[in-house]
Amino acid sequence: MKKAVVLYSGGLDSTTCLAIARSEGFEPYAMSFAYGQRHQAELKVAREYAREMGAQDHMLVDFDLRKIGGSALTSAIDVPKDGVGSDIPVTYVPARNTIFLSFALGWAEVLRSFDIYIGVNALDYSGYPDCRPEYIAAFETLANLATKAAVEGTGQYRIHTPLIHLTKAEIIRRGVALGVDYGKTHFCYDPTPEALACGRCDSCRLRLKGFAEAGVKDPVRYAVRGEE
Amino acid sequence: MKKAVVLYSGGLDSTTCLAIARSEGFEPYAMSFAYGQRHQAELKVAREYAREMGAQDHMLVDFDLRKIGGSALTSAIDVPKDGVGSDIPVTYVPARNTIFLSFALGWAEVLRSFDIYIGVNALDYSGYPDCRPEYIAAFETLANLATKAAVEGTGQYRIHTPLIHLTKAEIIRRGVALGVDYGKTHFCYDPTPEALACGRCDSCRLRLKGFAEAGVKDPVRYAVRGEE
Repeated sequence: MKKAVVLYSGGLDSTTCLAIARSEGFEPYAMSFAYGQRHQAELKVAREYAREMGAQDHMLVDFDLRKIGGSALTSAIDVPKDGVGSDIPVTYVPARNTIFLSFALGWAEVLRSFDIYIGVNALDYSGYPDCRPEYIAAFETLANLATKAAVEGTGQYRIHTPLIHLTKAEIIRRGVALGVDYGKTHFCYDPTPEALACGRCDSCRLRLKGFAEAGVKDPVRYAVRGEE
Repeated sequence: MKKAVVLYSGGLDSTTCLAIARSEGFEPYAMSFAYGQRHQAELKVAREYAREMGAQDHMLVDFDLRKIGGSALTSAIDVPKDGVGSDIPVTYVPARNTIFLSFALGWAEVLRSFDIYIGVNALDYSGYPDCRPEYIAAFETLANLATKAAVEGTGQYRIHTPLIHLTKAEIIRRGVALGVDYGKTHFCYDPTPEALACGRCDSCRLRLKGFAEAGVKDPVRYAVRGEE
């Protein structure tokens, strides 16, 4: 079985992405990051659920993007709760996907894997520059110049983005079909002290809208259910 | 003054690179990495010398590439001491420059800087895929797609590689002209317990050859002076 490195946060998108990698015949190696994000609940979930979802191994890489700042997810900027806007959101973390993909590339090289999965989505996160198809294509080009395998001609890296053109509803339907238990996926930018999802941040709103459109009941518990 | 992020290890090349960035009119922001490299002496030097060399700020980013492995610099593979070969050396660290440049890009974005300096060299390190001009060009393309500024059109990132086509002797002459004190630059892959440079690893051999060719006395103390 061919190996694939899957960027995996324990959230809805990356959990679905892991299930898709497996369904496409890869042995998934899940990679998560503790980067100083506000709440680390997602990492606990990621650790517990990665193996259950069929990951062969799970690696947690630890660094602190709070030193760099510039995002509501890693600094003192407030997480917005008044709806999804059209500008680049303050929850955008400078260079985050580039950093994540770089570590994935390093692990892939050591594993002799040429396949990296990342659950970026260009519809819901159109404001994030590093979720766009042209960005992913540029990283793939880079990967094929950056590595030993590139020089030695032993393989071609491919960055898989199976969710990039799917709506949240389509992602959820796809995951349900593959047996993903969405009760175990965590995703809220600003959970309550009781670990309930806030129901009002961008991530909660997009998720609730997705479940509503998919006609699937969201098993997660919310403090408030946004605009529902 | 325009800001530039300078990748800075405290070694000969990156110290010269920092001096060049300053001489080219930039206010340097030095960035170093504790990535689980065998010896951390270079980080101590980096911390002490960055400000002295005119850096406005110095950021140390901490993560552990030993988890990923695959290199003599981060795992139990022996550092070779029998001369510089033509293959990709075992001291190559998978995706290291991609990871370094990704963090530099994140910091640059927060600083509103569009200039990143990296002291890669395509002559002495021709075996490293991520020291080649085509790799650097691909990262520059990526940077201009990865960031807010790319989407908003407020600036163009440039990856500066002032050493890329210089011989070690030329780098040393350039640094001496800019006032670099090479007695403070550390670089050996495998120093002795007394913190003497080994004189036999690739890095020591290339440095000693460079100083000999430049006709400059190397102020660093060696255990053995390679093939001299």
